[in-house]
Amino acid sequence: MNAESYVTRVLAEWLVSQRLEDIPSDVHHEALRSLVNIVGCAIGGSTQPAVDIALRALSPFSGPPTAQPLARGERLDPFLASLVNGISSHVHDYDDTTPGNYSHPSSPVASALFAYASANPVSGRDFVHAFVLGFEAESRIGNAVYPAHYDAGWHITGTAGVFGAAVSIGRLLGLSTQQMIWAIGLAATQAAGLREMFGSMGKAFHPGRSAQNGYAAALLAREGFTAGERSLEGPRGFSAVTAAQYDLSKITRGLGETWDLRVNTYKPFPCGIVNHPTIDAAIQIHDEYNPAPEQIAAVRLRVAPLVLDLCNQQNITKGLQGKFSVYHGAAVGLVRGKAGLQEYSDEAVNDPAVKRVREHATAVGDSSITEDQARVEVELTDGRVLTRFIEESIGNLKRPLTDAQLNAKFRDQGVLALPSGQVDRLVDLCWRIDSLADVGELVRAAVPVSVPA
Amino acid sequence: MNAESYVTRVLAEWLVSQRLEDIPSDVHHEALRSLVNIVGCAIGGSTQPAVDIALRALSPFSGPPTAQPLARGERLDPFLASLVNGISSHVHDYDDTTPGNYSHPSSPVASALFAYASANPVSGRDFVHAFVLGFEAESRIGNAVYPAHYDAGWHITGTAGVFGAAVSIGRLLGLSTQQMIWAIGLAATQAAGLREMFGSMGKAFHPGRSAQNGYAAALLAREGFTAGERSLEGPRGFSAVTAAQYDLSKITRGLGETWDLRVNTYKPFPCGIVNHPTIDAAIQIHDEYNPAPEQIAAVRLRVAPLVLDLCNQQNITKGLQGKFSVYHGAAVGLVRGKAGLQEYSDEAVNDPAVKRVREHATAVGDSSITEDQARVEVELTDGRVLTRFIEESIGNLKRPLTDAQLNAKFRDQGVLALPSGQVDRLVDLCWRIDSLADVGELVRAAVPVSVPA
Repeated sequence: MNAESYVTRVLAEWLVSQRLEDIPSDVHHEALRSLVNIVGCAIGGSTQPAVDIALRALSPFSGPPTAQPLARGERLDPFLASLVNGISSHVHDYDDTTPGNYSHPSSPVASALFAYASANPVSGRDFVHAFVLGFEAESRIGNAVYPAHYDAGWHITGTAGVFGAAVSIGRLLGLSTQQMIWAIGLAATQAAGLREMFGSMGKAFHPGRSAQNGYAAALLAREGFTAGERSLEGPRGFSAVTAAQYDLSKITRGLGETWDLRVNTYKPFPCGIVNHPTIDAAIQIHDEYNPAPEQIAAVRLRVAPLVLDLCNQQNITKGLQGKFSVYHGAAVGLVRGKAGLQEYSDEAVNDPAVKRVREHATAVGDSSITEDQARVEVELTDGRVLTRFIEESIGNLKRPLTDAQLNAKFRDQGVLALPSGQVDRLVDLCWRIDSLADVGELVRAAVPVSVPA
Repeated sequence: MNAESYVTRVLAEWLVSQRLEDIPSDVHHEALRSLVNIVGCAIGGSTQPAVDIALRALSPFSGPPTAQPLARGERLDPFLASLVNGISSHVHDYDDTTPGNYSHPSSPVASALFAYASANPVSGRDFVHAFVLGFEAESRIGNAVYPAHYDAGWHITGTAGVFGAAVSIGRLLGLSTQQMIWAIGLAATQAAGLREMFGSMGKAFHPGRSAQNGYAAALLAREGFTAGERSLEGPRGFSAVTAAQYDLSKITRGLGETWDLRVNTYKPFPCGIVNHPTIDAAIQIHDEYNPAPEQIAAVRLRVAPLVLDLCNQQNITKGLQGKFSVYHGAAVGLVRGKAGLQEYSDEAVNDPAVKRVREHATAVGDSSITEDQARVEVELTDGRVLTRFIEESIGNLKRPLTDAQLNAKFRDQGVLALPSGQVDRLVDLCWRIDSLADVGELVRAAVPVSVPA
């Protein structure tokens, strides 16, 4: 059998037969890191208007409330819980990124899985296994159609994500190869999500709907709802229809040998990635010298020219504007030593100390500086000059967030919705998810205490 | 405002402000014909395995059972009822076709609307109005991207259908222009459905899922869930992303003046359209001469060459094979004087009289015969020769089905699921839908009597 002529079948056979014990330990640990990151993001986004609105519109139609979204009190059916998880975990654009295709891979997969686990007993081991497989399938399918697919205007987080959700739920349901082929087909034929939605709630809707639709695809396939069996490679299948160029060998080559989780990356700051090296430098200066804000006389930034094309706003009053201001990034780094969600609130943007430092900052575009680099120079009122050059920005593959930094990111988001002690217990449960007899325990531990469980 | 730069807004403004009394009476009558046709198709498909399987997989997750699909006993939430209506009304490929883009336009729109009407009071006038608007929006959007969109591999019934469902439900919800723009955006970003599913249950899944997703889009938009506001015309919007070439002026030009319902067509026979002129001729011979099957010595067909490429099966035993046999089409036309769903059952294919005539048939491809034409010559045992040449096949725009023929098609399908008397009452209600104070009455009248209502 020629692998590229039967990509869907080859992938499905691998997915139903792959064994947890054959997953390398580094891949397994990266899965835990991805789960810690995405659960933190889901909590951080759980109180956003997009979540509240979706629930107001759709929860009157929820089925039996066997499931629960992360960090919310509502009891819902697992489809709607999947949708809510997807919206909350992506709404801040703070989740993970796979560099092979720039999708945000964990949200669709984990959103469906946590919804499933809230409604059905599933061991931590099986859960992590299903996550690894869903992630791998989705990422490989994304790699196969990238970049033509993304360039055409597809939001690949949604279009590839539906496969990840279908596959991971399908694995937990114990689908046969035939059923998995149908699940992939029903995912393919629901693949959707336009980049035209960027800047609206529609963007975060994509991983949510993908999680929900992939979940349904797996359930339908289990009952024998048939689909085209060459949905990835067929002449009217996902790849040919959505990408002017594609490479199907990326789906099947090295299955079980190379793992896309190994190159997953986690956003250190919830703003445009071009600001990251500047923020990184500012935090390092803060941590090393701890200059008092009122001592700062001038901040001089030297950045890649693209930064000024995208993020040159200085006179700002809203948190959202802060995401597009390299000056704000530098200011919160210097003043607060961090740039988490709370540094992109309206309050933070109007914080007098932050505002003062931001207004003392200037920036120069320099084409000798890459988009992973930045130079920050801080002149103090006593004449001292503190400088830091970032060669590779934190969060990229060469300088991944440490486990401790992932914990800090989790806590920073967690306290927006939950008491600090509960956040600590929850992040601990995420790292120990493998040892849980039932992952439902983790979902229940994420319910706000003020809400009746 | 340049119409093509703001297509979504222009369309939305028209949709929220258009008045029922401004719809011409012929368009209104064609809406009734479309509704009669699609309700008949939904009944005819209501007992198909695809429907049973979808319900088995998904009804455990149904929300409060305020709604009901057509011709089924189950009580479901309106999303799931929309899905079931879409599957049942398209599963036999027997619904309507709009010649501007070859989509099957009524299924997604009517499926959502009947689900809505089963759960909410809605007058027949408002219902028909919403149907006309949903049909028009969906058909115009389909026209704008056809043929590049379809040629790329999109099943346009699904991809355009989601707009029709969103718009029609949005109109019943009384959306503002802003909300309608979001509803269209949320429809655009859910547009999906691959032709690779043809030949599987996945095909009928498309109008069902479109109905369901469009319905949800309208509800989300009403609550303020935002979407990209140039979802049709934007550089990363539906048209640019899914069609190599498109003409946005087809969406806005002549709104309120030209109506795509005027060119809607209804399939006379549930089989490949290339067989239709042959069947048409055979039925005319049956009706005029009524030859006894055993009198038929030979049947000679002269057809377009494509017919023999697609439908040259003669030695068949299954109903599904009958759909791809021009000989079977001729045989049931001559023996039974009709070719409805019941003529494509296993029983009909193995009916000794039908089988005998089918086996006495021969066919010649003739490039002077168009795909709308066929010549049928029947030689009787007494030496008489009966011939009929079809210049334009029944069901196409030049020879549309009459209202009486639509009634016959409805009844032929209806009796597969419902007692004859109930079918008669139901088709009468469909024609009188305008006068109903609550269209829920029609949905309740379609529940099989053997099922507790």
